[in-house]
Amino acid sequence: MDWEKVFASRAMRMKASEIRELLKLLEQPDIISFAGGIPDVALFPKEAVSKAYGEVLAGDQGDAALQYSVSEGYKPLRDWIVKEMAKIGIPCNATNVFITSGSQQVLDYLGKLFLSPNDTALVTWPTYMGALGAFNAYEPTYDKLLPMSNRPASSYVDAAEKAGGRVKFAYAVAEFHNPTGETMTKGEREWLLDLAETLDIPVVEDAAYQALRYDGETVPPILALDIARHGGDINKTRTFYCGSFSKTLAPGLRVGWVVANEEVVRKLVLIKQAADLHSSTINQMVIGKVADGVFAEQVEKIKRVYSHRRNQMLAALQKSMPAGVEWTKPEGGMFVWVTLPKGMDGAALLAKAIAEAKVAFVPGRAFHADGSGQNTLRLSFSCASDEMIETGISRLGSLIRSELAAA
Amino acid sequence: MDWEKVFASRAMRMKASEIRELLKLLEQPDIISFAGGIPDVALFPKEAVSKAYGEVLAGDQGDAALQYSVSEGYKPLRDWIVKEMAKIGIPCNATNVFITSGSQQVLDYLGKLFLSPNDTALVTWPTYMGALGAFNAYEPTYDKLLPMSNRPASSYVDAAEKAGGRVKFAYAVAEFHNPTGETMTKGEREWLLDLAETLDIPVVEDAAYQALRYDGETVPPILALDIARHGGDINKTRTFYCGSFSKTLAPGLRVGWVVANEEVVRKLVLIKQAADLHSSTINQMVIGKVADGVFAEQVEKIKRVYSHRRNQMLAALQKSMPAGVEWTKPEGGMFVWVTLPKGMDGAALLAKAIAEAKVAFVPGRAFHADGSGQNTLRLSFSCASDEMIETGISRLGSLIRSELAAA
Repeated sequence: MDWEKVFASRAMRMKASEIRELLKLLEQPDIISFAGGIPDVALFPKEAVSKAYGEVLAGDQGDAALQYSVSEGYKPLRDWIVKEMAKIGIPCNATNVFITSGSQQVLDYLGKLFLSPNDTALVTWPTYMGALGAFNAYEPTYDKLLPMSNRPASSYVDAAEKAGGRVKFAYAVAEFHNPTGETMTKGEREWLLDLAETLDIPVVEDAAYQALRYDGETVPPILALDIARHGGDINKTRTFYCGSFSKTLAPGLRVGWVVANEEVVRKLVLIKQAADLHSSTINQMVIGKVADGVFAEQVEKIKRVYSHRRNQMLAALQKSMPAGVEWTKPEGGMFVWVTLPKGMDGAALLAKAIAEAKVAFVPGRAFHADGSGQNTLRLSFSCASDEMIETGISRLGSLIRSELAAA
Repeated sequence: MDWEKVFASRAMRMKASEIRELLKLLEQPDIISFAGGIPDVALFPKEAVSKAYGEVLAGDQGDAALQYSVSEGYKPLRDWIVKEMAKIGIPCNATNVFITSGSQQVLDYLGKLFLSPNDTALVTWPTYMGALGAFNAYEPTYDKLLPMSNRPASSYVDAAEKAGGRVKFAYAVAEFHNPTGETMTKGEREWLLDLAETLDIPVVEDAAYQALRYDGETVPPILALDIARHGGDINKTRTFYCGSFSKTLAPGLRVGWVVANEEVVRKLVLIKQAADLHSSTINQMVIGKVADGVFAEQVEKIKRVYSHRRNQMLAALQKSMPAGVEWTKPEGGMFVWVTLPKGMDGAALLAKAIAEAKVAFVPGRAFHADGSGQNTLRLSFSCASDEMIETGISRLGSLIRSELAAA
C-alpha cells in the first residue's frame, strides 16, 4: 500500500541517521571506539541487581512486582528520590516525582506536552542529539540558547512567531553536557532562569550526568535556583529536573525520573497512562532496592574509574593533537568535545578514521539543530582503557596531522 | 507560571477520567470488584520469572542485560515470536517483529506514525478505552467501524474530509474484545480488509487476548488473512498485529510486540529510538527465557481458571439479572458486556453499586468515542472467585431490579 499517503507529517521527517549507519561498522572488533555514550558494563552493580530481583520476587511485593501498577511510579522509589534530591538543594515531595522509562522518555513526554508543529524550543548549539530526536517528533523549530548574550527576549518571541508558533521551553544539559562535557556556570543558570521568566516558559534541565562530578566546584541545579527564587516552594517553579539511573546504576532496566511542580507532574502522569501505562513494576522495585543499598558506593566507584579515564584522555590529546585542534576540559561526565581547525569535516574524518586509523567517534554535526558544527567531534572516554586511549588518540592525532598537511 | 500558555493543544484535552476517580473507591476492602481488566496475580509464573532473572544475570548475557540495547528489541525474543506467529497462520521473519513496552505502547506509536490533528481513526463503538487514550494524544476524530454494513467506503472519506483530515487507519480488537468479550467473525475480518483496501489504509489488530480462547472455533488473525491475500508475503500487507505478554505471562515486565511489514517496522523503530531508546533489556531476555520454557503450560493454566470464572459469571447473570438486561457470551478473554434497559445509566448505577451494593464495574460510556453507551457496563471475571461472582452478581441484580422498579 501507499504508506506515504497515511503517514502523519511528522513521520515523513523520520529517517535513520547516516551516522548510525556509519557507526554500525564498529562491530568490527579491531576498531577502537570513542563513539558510544554508554556506561562501562564492568562497573554495573550486577550482584546487587541480581540479589534485588531475587528478594523482590521472594518478598511481600513479589506478586505486585509482576502486576500492572500506577502511572506515576512506585512510591518507595519516589520517596528515595525525594531524599536524594534534598541532598542537592531540591526540597520536594513524592507528588513532585514521576518515574519514567529512562530520562529519554521524559524528553519525549515534554515534547508531547508542550510542542505543537512550528513551535520553538530553545536549545544549545550543540546539544544532546537524543533530545533533538525526541522533540523532532512534534515538529518544532529551534532557536539558539547559549552562550549568554544581550539578545533581547523579544527577539526570541519574534523569531518564533515568524516560524509559525510560540517559544515553548528552553532545554539545557546543565552538567557535563552531552556532547561537550561542559558545565553551565551559576551565572549562566541564573541568566537562563531570567530569560525563562521573561518569556514565561518552562526550563527542561537534563541532569543525566549530574552525579558524575570528578573535580571542580558543585553548582546548584537549575531547579534548586528556581526553588530559591520562589521561597522554597517547588510548586511555583518552572523547571523540570530530568534524572536517570542509566549512568549510575544500569541503563538496561530503563528507569529515570522527573522532578517538577505537581500540577505539571499530574499532566505527565496522564500522558504516560495513555502512552505505555507505567514503567516496569519490578524494575522500579529493583532500582529502589539497589539504590537504597549501594547508590553512594556505586557512584564513588564509577567516579574513580571515569575520572582516571578522563585524565588519560586529556593527557593523550595534549600529547597527540596538532596545533589548531582544541578540546574541552570536562569536570565530570563521559565526553570530551574536540574542535578541529576550520574547514575540516568531522563526518569525512570519521570515514577515514574508521577505514585507515581504526578509530571511531561521533561527528559533531548530529548535535546541532541547524546542521552546523562540521568541524567538531565527540569523544567518549567512559568505556576506554588506558591502552585504547593511548593508541586511539595517537592514531587520531596522526590522521588529523596528515589531513592538515594534505589540505 | 501560566501553563496553559505553553501547553500544546493536545495537552488541553487531557484530563483524568471521572471513572478512574470513582474506581479509586475500590481500595475499600469490602467492595467486590469486577472493574479491573487485569490478570490474576495468583496465576503469574513467579518461580519461572525469578529463576530466569537469576540465570540471565549469571549467564553470558549478564552484562548485556544491564546495558543499552537496540531499539527493535532482543533478537532471541523476536525469534521466539516468529515461531509463535507461525503457529497461528502468520509466517514472518525477525525483521517483521518489533518489541515494545507493552502493547499499549504500540498503540501510542501507531498514533504518532499516522495521526495528524483532525485525521480520522475508524474504531468500533464501544472499543478499548486505552486505545482511545493513546490516539487522543494526536487529536484525531473517530468514525464508526462495525457492525458490517453497506455504508459506501466513500462516505468514510467524505466524513473525514469534513472533519478536516483523512482516514488514517482502522483499529479493531479481533478476539474477546475489551470491553465486549466478543470475537470478530471471519466474514467481519474479510469485510474489514476489503474496506481497508478500498480506503487504502492500514488495519491495527489488537490481539492482547488472542491466546485466551476457552471454547468455540479459532478464527484466523486479520494479519493471517491479509498475508493470504498477498501470496504469503507479509511485506505486502497493511495489518499491524499487536501482541502482549501481559495477559499470558505478566504485565509488570512491560513487554509486548507488533508484527507487520518490515518497511513500517523500520519506521516504528525510529519512533522508539527517539521516544525511549528501547524496552528494558533484561526484561526482554527474561520474557524470552520464560516464554521458551513455560508459555504453553502457562496459557493452559490460565485458560482453565478463567474459563471456569467465565462460566460462573454467565450462570450468575442468568440467575440474577431481571428481564430486559442483556449480556454477551464470550468465548475467551476477561470480559462480559452488559446492556441495561434503555434509560438506565451505567455511571449512576456504579455510584449506587459502590455505595449500596458494595460492587464495582466499569460503566460503558468510557469505551465509546462518541460518548454514547450510557446503558452499558463491563464486568471482568479474571480476578473473581466463585463466591465473589455469586455474591456480587446477585447484589448487582437486586440493585438493577430495584432501580427498574423505581423508574
